[in-house]
Amino acid sequence: MNTIGKIFTFTGFGESHGAAIGGVIDGMPAGLKIDLDRVQHELDRRRPGQSLITTARRESDTVEILSGLFEGVTIGCPIGFIIRNENQHSQDYGQLRDAFRPSHADFTYTSKYGLRDYRGGGRSSARETATRVVAGAFARQALEQMGIKITAYTSQVGHIALDAPYPSLDLSLVDSNPVRCPDPAKAKEMEDYILDIKKEGDTIGGIVSCVITGAPAGLGEPVFGRLGARLAEAMMSINASKAFEYGMGFGGVSLRGSQVMDTFVPDGRGGIGIASNNSGGIQGGISNGEDIYFRVAFKPVATLMKDVPTVDSDGNVITLKARGRHDPCVIPRAVPIVEAMAAIVMLDAALLNRAARI
Amino acid sequence: MNTIGKIFTFTGFGESHGAAIGGVIDGMPAGLKIDLDRVQHELDRRRPGQSLITTARRESDTVEILSGLFEGVTIGCPIGFIIRNENQHSQDYGQLRDAFRPSHADFTYTSKYGLRDYRGGGRSSARETATRVVAGAFARQALEQMGIKITAYTSQVGHIALDAPYPSLDLSLVDSNPVRCPDPAKAKEMEDYILDIKKEGDTIGGIVSCVITGAPAGLGEPVFGRLGARLAEAMMSINASKAFEYGMGFGGVSLRGSQVMDTFVPDGRGGIGIASNNSGGIQGGISNGEDIYFRVAFKPVATLMKDVPTVDSDGNVITLKARGRHDPCVIPRAVPIVEAMAAIVMLDAALLNRAARI
Amino acid sequence: MNTIGKIFTFTGFGESHGAAIGGVIDGMPAGLKIDLDRVQHELDRRRPGQSLITTARRESDTVEILSGLFEGVTIGCPIGFIIRNENQHSQDYGQLRDAFRPSHADFTYTSKYGLRDYRGGGRSSARETATRVVAGAFARQALEQMGIKITAYTSQVGHIALDAPYPSLDLSLVDSNPVRCPDPAKAKEMEDYILDIKKEGDTIGGIVSCVITGAPAGLGEPVFGRLGARLAEAMMSINASKAFEYGMGFGGVSLRGSQVMDTFVPDGRGGIGIASNNSGGIQGGISNGEDIYFRVAFKPVATLMKDVPTVDSDGNVITLKARGRHDPCVIPRAVPIVEAMAAIVMLDAALLNRAARI
Amino acid sequence: MNTIGKIFTFTGFGESHGAAIGGVIDGMPAGLKIDLDRVQHELDRRRPGQSLITTARRESDTVEILSGLFEGVTIGCPIGFIIRNENQHSQDYGQLRDAFRPSHADFTYTSKYGLRDYRGGGRSSARETATRVVAGAFARQALEQMGIKITAYTSQVGHIALDAPYPSLDLSLVDSNPVRCPDPAKAKEMEDYILDIKKEGDTIGGIVSCVITGAPAGLGEPVFGRLGARLAEAMMSINASKAFEYGMGFGGVSLRGSQVMDTFVPDGRGGIGIASNNSGGIQGGISNGEDIYFRVAFKPVATLMKDVPTVDSDGNVITLKARGRHDPCVIPRAVPIVEAMAAIVMLDAALLNRAARI
Repeated sequence: MNTIGKIFTFTGFGESHGAAIGGVIDGMPAGLKIDLDRVQHELDRRRPGQSLITTARRESDTVEILSGLFEGVTIGCPIGFIIRNENQHSQDYGQLRDAFRPSHADFTYTSKYGLRDYRGGGRSSARETATRVVAGAFARQALEQMGIKITAYTSQVGHIALDAPYPSLDLSLVDSNPVRCPDPAKAKEMEDYILDIKKEGDTIGGIVSCVITGAPAGLGEPVFGRLGARLAEAMMSINASKAFEYGMGFGGVSLRGSQVMDTFVPDGRGGIGIASNNSGGIQGGISNGEDIYFRVAFKPVATLMKDVPTVDSDGNVITLKARGRHDPCVIPRAVPIVEAMAAIVMLDAALLNRAARI
Repeated sequence: MNTIGKIFTFTGFGESHGAAIGGVIDGMPAGLKIDLDRVQHELDRRRPGQSLITTARRESDTVEILSGLFEGVTIGCPIGFIIRNENQHSQDYGQLRDAFRPSHADFTYTSKYGLRDYRGGGRSSARETATRVVAGAFARQALEQMGIKITAYTSQVGHIALDAPYPSLDLSLVDSNPVRCPDPAKAKEMEDYILDIKKEGDTIGGIVSCVITGAPAGLGEPVFGRLGARLAEAMMSINASKAFEYGMGFGGVSLRGSQVMDTFVPDGRGGIGIASNNSGGIQGGISNGEDIYFRVAFKPVATLMKDVPTVDSDGNVITLKARGRHDPCVIPRAVPIVEAMAAIVMLDAALLNRAARI
Repeated sequence: MNTIGKIFTFTGFGESHGAAIGGVIDGMPAGLKIDLDRVQHELDRRRPGQSLITTARRESDTVEILSGLFEGVTIGCPIGFIIRNENQHSQDYGQLRDAFRPSHADFTYTSKYGLRDYRGGGRSSARETATRVVAGAFARQALEQMGIKITAYTSQVGHIALDAPYPSLDLSLVDSNPVRCPDPAKAKEMEDYILDIKKEGDTIGGIVSCVITGAPAGLGEPVFGRLGARLAEAMMSINASKAFEYGMGFGGVSLRGSQVMDTFVPDGRGGIGIASNNSGGIQGGISNGEDIYFRVAFKPVATLMKDVPTVDSDGNVITLKARGRHDPCVIPRAVPIVEAMAAIVMLDAALLNRAARI
Repeated sequence: MNTIGKIFTFTGFGESHGAAIGGVIDGMPAGLKIDLDRVQHELDRRRPGQSLITTARRESDTVEILSGLFEGVTIGCPIGFIIRNENQHSQDYGQLRDAFRPSHADFTYTSKYGLRDYRGGGRSSARETATRVVAGAFARQALEQMGIKITAYTSQVGHIALDAPYPSLDLSLVDSNPVRCPDPAKAKEMEDYILDIKKEGDTIGGIVSCVITGAPAGLGEPVFGRLGARLAEAMMSINASKAFEYGMGFGGVSLRGSQVMDTFVPDGRGGIGIASNNSGGIQGGISNGEDIYFRVAFKPVATLMKDVPTVDSDGNVITLKARGRHDPCVIPRAVPIVEAMAAIVMLDAALLNRAARI
């Protein structure tokens, strides 16, 4: 189950300390000139070591495209690619051979498979999300041809929340600070907070918000292919994500139907407009032409930079020494991952929709 | 895309005012004696007209099993079934032929397909969820054989929230009141509130919580088949759902890693235990043997019992008269639907897990 | 695995002696006016009891459409349907409770599932192919809108072969005789032969040929979705089929590359033509715009109208008495089934092809 | 559609003249020690340049495993791998930029995608089958743990056929000659014939036979997952394949039911045996415990070593010069490919079967 999507699909592979990670992008429509610099740019946004608030690990994360392009243009054939793993301090992980890190996947992988690659989490490491970013970078170039644009940003770190609704934000500022929050003052506050957390050897959670503009009405497939369900699945497949909401989400449950109703109105050009967008751009599982917006919650990173108690595989209590280099907060690096997964879902939906009518 | 699941699958069909709804349950393991009364009982829990706080529509919702059972036992063949639609006041819907109800799927279905069955929402109506309940009722009988049990309950209606964590609740009380809230006092409060809302012709949202006990460690498939992702997809495919969270969910984002860590401890029997369950029973996308718990938010029903303004397909402003019979709050009837979808996901995961090792 | 297809899919259910057979057609494009009489007509072509050379069983095989059509037009929603089983002489099958019929699926189903519905073969009976004919009848109405036409015919019964290539045949004569062979003289010969075989209580095999005209170049997906692979899968999923070939098939293996080459030539209208069609309309797994033609071999029916020796589930030798009513030769009734399966494959391919280019 | 399989899956990528070919093997059960030398050995059997009767192209075809193994053992995670392309005489293909080679995929790929990688056939080249051999080599090591063994061999080249049934052959001799025919005299005859054909610059077709032993009763899924259908799909997805048959195949159509019946008999050990195996080890789509055997026909290679007429993309008649290095007959190299595809299908079936019973 390392494949996502129906006709535009991505299949990933790779452990954090294996030779390489990579994947296969299938169903990419032919005839699209790909800007590979932009693909690499997305990877750079996710790369470790990009600022003081991310892990100090160094990986160049250089993607090598192996197939599917001819003279820079997609040819309808699968796009295979790899990213070599470079900065593997496997010796950091020796103590994990027989120990289960708390709140990690060590125990569950071993329960499921009877063994595991214990170096850096293996397949369960967020390292594999780099391959998703590559797939997403291809998808978004196709989406842009269709006028569909995806922008994510950090909207909460710990208790520090950016409460302003997205239309009031200048989303062009997202990458202007290391936190990827479009409000510079909040961004500074969040950054300082992450640095404090880091100093304590602790970690903190947060929320990524995402907005999709330009999607035409009609994307999404009833009933199990609802666009909200597909987005939820994609977001909840990201490491450390614990919650998803779109439109009014949890906040809408205490409101009345009469308060959240998105009334249809004349659009002033003889067509039909919608007076509000509490639905988050999706009604009955299908896009209605308004902006699609959603939020994804991420728990604090499970790896602390302090010693933690646990048990070994024989059930003996041991202490795990703080080792390795880890993010105090995944949110800034999660922003391009959320965008990538959204792009994968949206391109698949856009292509599927071509079969809706005779 | 009316199919969900990988090897245990459900494919549904049916519009609210067609001849029947139904579906095909495939991948049901052979050799299970099915209690059909319990299948019908689950349908009865979802049925309209069961109490004053649900719609007054009358449907007996009698399921007819057409295949897949022989002498009451599953034979490994697909289980086809239908539920006849009975109470179709199609005349109620005449005014909808050329109008789009606000916050409904009328506009998006028409945008996608160029036409729609305008009677009662057609395929976009929650009527089809009755077929999911049938599939879920089969799945849960298989799960029970494996010791896995699923219980959902109403944990919030409007602003009235049951904040107590599930282990402190007596979940055997869920069906003791029409709201399906295991706290009798809160249940009464919620019920009164729904009746007030109903009197005003308005509607209200809420939250369904769900607990899965007895799941062994090892269920869920990395990385796109993460158990949390599969549950999210399934829940977000339910009509009117807008948000999903498991474990600490959105609440966990403002906590520190050191606060939410689920420490491994000796279990006192020579094995390994876990001191807390902030992870919600899933780590790295795979069940860890602890209880799995999650919450699903539902928006207020879009159909009010008052006149609402909208536009017709020519863009003219019109008024939709209050017609039909609708739920003021979907939460009580959503409880068995959430359980059913959880059962479908869990059985699929349990069967897939059989292929994990050589 | 009772579903076939990628985005146009069919999911079937039903045993030969259960309450009903049926299925769900999903991914049917919206906006197509369906001629239900033609759907029923295809079922009538497959129906038992239609002539002296088919089984004497009587089933009206009346299809009841339950969803997916509104005012006779497809609406993009799944089409659920059932066909009630009527003529169930279950008492004919009492002796099969503990016995395995030779060359049937009794033994393999019991091996797989631990039990089986022994009445008339249950799910393994060709009765379920009636549901495929319904799905195919919908698919072919969509294909006709696209100019794609599918015609199958009986080309061999036992040793009696119609060797003439299909372009020399008048395919409008297929239904002019009970054998469904477009050459009236051969048809008579085949019919007489089947009657002789029937008199002896024996059965005989044969070959169905099929021609697809009007398919544009470009259908089929590399590499595992090759059109030839999809057709092969679909045909080999039909009961009693044992072989598939397209283009020159087995006959081409003893020819040289220079003999079978399909040379491109100017088409006289400034475009590109092909001088021959040894490839059978598919090159590199993708249609080339020429006719697609293939052949499917069916073994002789396993049920004889004479006593046969076998063993019971305890391994004792017993004699199975000739019972029930069976076809001496499946070929005439296989013709509409082959057409139906071809239609399902072709519509799926045609819809998938819409996503080929940006 | 570059993925095959349901829960054991293979996703391939790569064009003949791109940087590399490769793929992702997913669903490989954990805990299997892999012999990588044997994986490479299978690749060597498929490699070009292995004898005088194969193409003179030189590729070392060295597989690099990038993930999914830890200390040589499968860990349940996807196995990513690549094979670098080395011997790319792209200049050989300059003349193909605007021309369509007859009986190749040049025209159909261009029709479908609007453009193509014209170097050596791109994705439509049989080069990609090397990646299937890798996937198959993993699958067969898992199958061997289960006692299932797969052996293919050349049974016909042009008109030279090995008519002896497989049980009379010594299949250990398959690799004792470059043709991969287990009958040394026939092998010599075939080899000489291929050399003659090669001298003339022509090509010739042939047949690969395959036997699967040790498969338990119960593999295969009704009705669209019939084992015969899955094998047919897999075989017909191989380049240049045109026909598939199992058991008696086309030969059985002229026989009577009473002649081909596989009678159940006491096995002499208190169990059930089968007196013959005309069914080819599959009944009702499910394995019956007997040997599974089938045959795949391959057309003569489309690329001749002589000049051939064709048209360019403007419809002008041109002559294609004989260039490149090509196989006069694909059969010897197809043998390991057929085995690989059979292994992929069988492992998937074996794993799926674990979900058959409660």
